[in-house]
Amino acid sequence: MSITQPQADLAIAAARRAADAIGVPMNIAVLDDGANLKAFARMDGALLGSADIALGKAKTAALFGFNTEVIGEFCKPGGTSPGLENTNGGLVVFAGGIPVHGPDGRVIGAIGISGGAVAQDFEVAQAAVAAVEAQTGGAR
Amino acid sequence: MSITQPQADLAIAAARRAADAIGVPMNIAVLDDGANLKAFARMDGALLGSADIALGKAKTAALFGFNTEVIGEFCKPGGTSPGLENTNGGLVVFAGGIPVHGPDGRVIGAIGISGGAVAQDFEVAQAAVAAVEAQTGGAR
Amino acid sequence: MSITQPQADLAIAAARRAADAIGVPMNIAVLDDGANLKAFARMDGALLGSADIALGKAKTAALFGFNTEVIGEFCKPGGTSPGLENTNGGLVVFAGGIPVHGPDGRVIGAIGISGGAVAQDFEVAQAAVAAVEAQTGGAR
Amino acid sequence: MSITQPQADLAIAAARRAADAIGVPMNIAVLDDGANLKAFARMDGALLGSADIALGKAKTAALFGFNTEVIGEFCKPGGTSPGLENTNGGLVVFAGGIPVHGPDGRVIGAIGISGGAVAQDFEVAQAAVAAVEAQTGGAR
Repeated sequence: MSITQPQADLAIAAARRAADAIGVPMNIAVLDDGANLKAFARMDGALLGSADIALGKAKTAALFGFNTEVIGEFCKPGGTSPGLENTNGGLVVFAGGIPVHGPDGRVIGAIGISGGAVAQDFEVAQAAVAAVEAQTGGAR
Repeated sequence: MSITQPQADLAIAAARRAADAIGVPMNIAVLDDGANLKAFARMDGALLGSADIALGKAKTAALFGFNTEVIGEFCKPGGTSPGLENTNGGLVVFAGGIPVHGPDGRVIGAIGISGGAVAQDFEVAQAAVAAVEAQTGGAR
Repeated sequence: MSITQPQADLAIAAARRAADAIGVPMNIAVLDDGANLKAFARMDGALLGSADIALGKAKTAALFGFNTEVIGEFCKPGGTSPGLENTNGGLVVFAGGIPVHGPDGRVIGAIGISGGAVAQDFEVAQAAVAAVEAQTGGAR
Repeated sequence: MSITQPQADLAIAAARRAADAIGVPMNIAVLDDGANLKAFARMDGALLGSADIALGKAKTAALFGFNTEVIGEFCKPGGTSPGLENTNGGLVVFAGGIPVHGPDGRVIGAIGISGGAVAQDFEVAQAAVAAVEAQTGGAR
């Protein structure tokens, strides 16, 4: 099962609302369960360089089925997997990428958000994922 | 002047309607006047490999301010610019990429469509560009 | 729906038998519906450079849902889509890549074969796909 | 001497059994003595992003003839070879890649495993290598 177009639309709309609520324009990336691009939006005024970061966060979350900051723990000095961030053509391993789950708990895609402080990116990504999982009955 | 988020939304909505009208799900890419990604949508059932082509068409049209098939003329055997298609990290030089103009005639972005026969891609791209230029008063 | 491990095993076993029957060792690549690597085997004596070709054929068939030689028609001099073969990081557009279908007719993955004459590659790929589709009830 | 197809089959079968025994689906990569891809399997449910890591671990072990975590020692802060992990198009320098030896002690290929905790990857890689070396009489 893979994220659908209406679900990707839901995710982008929810991300925009959350971004507007904090006054920080964001880059919003939606990838499917095969880590392929499904939808993207760069809000007016969003940082240009953060587009690639949003895409990278979504890729990282789709590839591993974990939040990006969890992957970041593995790469930390003293972590189990030094250099993990250099695999798969480069991962982004700080918060803002979150997998989206279907009703059976399986990953159906991922959202990546970038444009603000990392905590803001994370908050907006959570809002986008919650909007889709409320509709799919997604469970972890 | 660069294409705005509401204009990119308009372009995607118009492309979807045109794609639905002919029953061919499409990949829809919107780039700004800096040839940077602004918005993207892969409709459910659209060919996976055509996502990269839609992005490439939009890039080609945004970079040169011409329809992609016009650029294709320059690269043809006997054309003025053999190998042009290999510049800029690779261009896509068949129809389906069209620049979007502002009221002063300047390029504000480009649309790239891929997923059907080339003539279908072109038709859907035209619908998307027309929707934005009707709103901007875009002129060539 | 995506090709499973037992189905990929079936495909590789059938490809090996078909390759042995004509005495030509082959490279055998199996990709899933997201064009991600699922399984691979380079038979003893198979051409080393054909490993990349088998992977490229499977990628091309998975991305577009067509046999690779059909994609080749689009790229031919005078075809509709000159340069199509340079998209998606490079396609392989001669015979030997075939999509695999599920019971509902949707693409669940693709097989790519390389190591012999193109007609031999095609024959072995057909055998591999037939083995999986006989089991899935795959329909086109 | 290079790892053969039947030996690669043995390695994959042993890795699958070891992965099933601990209930963690794995990506399994087998490279030959030229560090070229010989065989690969992504078990159903295995992490998608770990396919590239399994391939990277097998490449690293095949290129240097050491376990990947041994190479990791050289790259550590204060190690002898800072940046070693960036050579050869990128190495993977945590456990899970192990060279396979022939009866004369020479490297005939390597196995790379990824999909679980690093200690689990290592355990499964050991099982795969042991299965082949039991058959070849491989010695270190």
